[in-house]
Amino acid sequence: MKIVLDAMGGDFGAEPNVEAAIRAARDFGHEIVLVGKQELIRPLLNQHDTAGLMLPIVHASEVVEMDEHPSAAVRAKKDNSMSVGMRLVKEGQADAFVTMGNTGAGMAAALFTLGRIKGVLRPALSSALPTAKGWTFIIDIGANADCKPEYLVQFAIMASIYAERVMKVRNPRVGLLSNGEEESKGSELVQATHQLLKTAPVNFIGNVEGRDIPGGGADVIVTDGFTGNVSIKLMEGMKEFIEGMLKEAFYSSLPAKLGGALSRSAIRNTLKARTSYEEIGGAPLLGVDGVVIIGHGRSKAPAIYSAIRRAAESVEFGVVDAIERGLAALPPSA
Amino acid sequence: MKIVLDAMGGDFGAEPNVEAAIRAARDFGHEIVLVGKQELIRPLLNQHDTAGLMLPIVHASEVVEMDEHPSAAVRAKKDNSMSVGMRLVKEGQADAFVTMGNTGAGMAAALFTLGRIKGVLRPALSSALPTAKGWTFIIDIGANADCKPEYLVQFAIMASIYAERVMKVRNPRVGLLSNGEEESKGSELVQATHQLLKTAPVNFIGNVEGRDIPGGGADVIVTDGFTGNVSIKLMEGMKEFIEGMLKEAFYSSLPAKLGGALSRSAIRNTLKARTSYEEIGGAPLLGVDGVVIIGHGRSKAPAIYSAIRRAAESVEFGVVDAIERGLAALPPSA
Repeated sequence: MKIVLDAMGGDFGAEPNVEAAIRAARDFGHEIVLVGKQELIRPLLNQHDTAGLMLPIVHASEVVEMDEHPSAAVRAKKDNSMSVGMRLVKEGQADAFVTMGNTGAGMAAALFTLGRIKGVLRPALSSALPTAKGWTFIIDIGANADCKPEYLVQFAIMASIYAERVMKVRNPRVGLLSNGEEESKGSELVQATHQLLKTAPVNFIGNVEGRDIPGGGADVIVTDGFTGNVSIKLMEGMKEFIEGMLKEAFYSSLPAKLGGALSRSAIRNTLKARTSYEEIGGAPLLGVDGVVIIGHGRSKAPAIYSAIRRAAESVEFGVVDAIERGLAALPPSA
Repeated sequence: MKIVLDAMGGDFGAEPNVEAAIRAARDFGHEIVLVGKQELIRPLLNQHDTAGLMLPIVHASEVVEMDEHPSAAVRAKKDNSMSVGMRLVKEGQADAFVTMGNTGAGMAAALFTLGRIKGVLRPALSSALPTAKGWTFIIDIGANADCKPEYLVQFAIMASIYAERVMKVRNPRVGLLSNGEEESKGSELVQATHQLLKTAPVNFIGNVEGRDIPGGGADVIVTDGFTGNVSIKLMEGMKEFIEGMLKEAFYSSLPAKLGGALSRSAIRNTLKARTSYEEIGGAPLLGVDGVVIIGHGRSKAPAIYSAIRRAAESVEFGVVDAIERGLAALPPSA
């Protein structure tokens, strides 16, 4: 198998990408194509013993930076590492594409270069979020601010397929994010989607509420990209807010200071174990005609390694074909 | 001034309501009308020295329970304490209404009994949320799942007036909740609202993101009732999730256990000081033709006392009139 890694993606430059590629090539036996500026990648590769590993470099002279306007940058920089990498997938020279780069640019490049799977109305980005009970997949987290009921039904099917095949969740419970559990609750979009999901080929458990995201009330939580994006950023903000209050508490008295010193590493370890994205690796962009995983810009080598693994598993377990078949089974109205 | 308190509202029955009413009558010198089952209220009042205080009881034979369907219950139970209390306001026999009861029923009863302020398209519920920098008002948190841009502009004006007059926030910064800070980001609803807010009579600072809610990025955050409701429930869920992880951390090793014992009270005090709703008292239902404050069902006497104070301040500082004037100043298109 041949996985393309955007060696330029992420906040830490080529180094963690090259490191992850070497580990992945060694552990999985796959060919990992490093796409990006060869004058940066080559010296990093040379620092390691890569004998017997398949780690070709494909040169791309441009990079979409994290703060650039996604689609404008992708259009302007024809030779950016994302578009070059995805072209390899499009032309059948590689099986999957992985990047830690600008999320919006990754989505734009995928739409321009790979296009959609037949039958897909809108590709969507799905992210795994830590919960009290493990992980939940939320889809969409920002690709589509405005949605129709038919899009959300497809999101439910696509994320269920990914959760089941790649993340090995059996018969994933699909919840529809709403402002109340009752069927009568929700925006017009949600009420119409609720009716469609009742007969869709997913394990629909009904509406879920905001508290069910961290509560783990469903394995897949379906929502429009506007609400999904607000939700994941709100969760990040809440985590920072509460961590700030904890710090404040640990400085508020002498016993608390001592208590903080004694418990700090346990707290750090627990939070890390329960919320680390390293095992998850990245967010699958579902519905584009090829496997694309977009990781967090702050990813270091272990998270990038996991993203490569998820990409390989997506290929191995036929996620793209399964989505095409899954959507073809829907009634024509959707 | 005469404030009506729903003595039946909330999870703890009449007792904390009566206690708060007595304290408020004593401290503020207002008349506090207790509405509800007199056979329950009278014995509670008799346990206290209420000499010289104005604490009349108005009997209402029915109660909307917390788990009832809001508008159906309000319609079916004509003599419920909320509707009876609001009728006193409607008929000019009282100045404001306060309840810790079923939020949806409070909204329904207010719409049926009080109606809207002239010019108001949709009343909305606003809640104060704790942030890293103090408090932020989010509006709407659930009254209107589907909104038009003109509604959101009115929400911004109404919440600004409340924040400024009652909560004493000077020139409150109004942010529009979106999936990106740039003006070009957002659903169609948000993009259209953004343009209207630019010329609206509020201190509009542009789009804010999910993380700005706990981050305190604005004093008033405007959103539709669907997104607002998902957001506040998500924040509650995140708080529980992180508290659960903390507990786990404090049981993970002997030093951590000791550390937890030493710091537990500091953590509890800091969280309480920074996130307690007791000072806030309740959520104003803005846009109905009368002052209505709906508090959390879990409120105890101190929170109910604050809610009564906010209601009195809303009357004193002319929130209803200010909203009518504020909306009248809008161009006719809105």
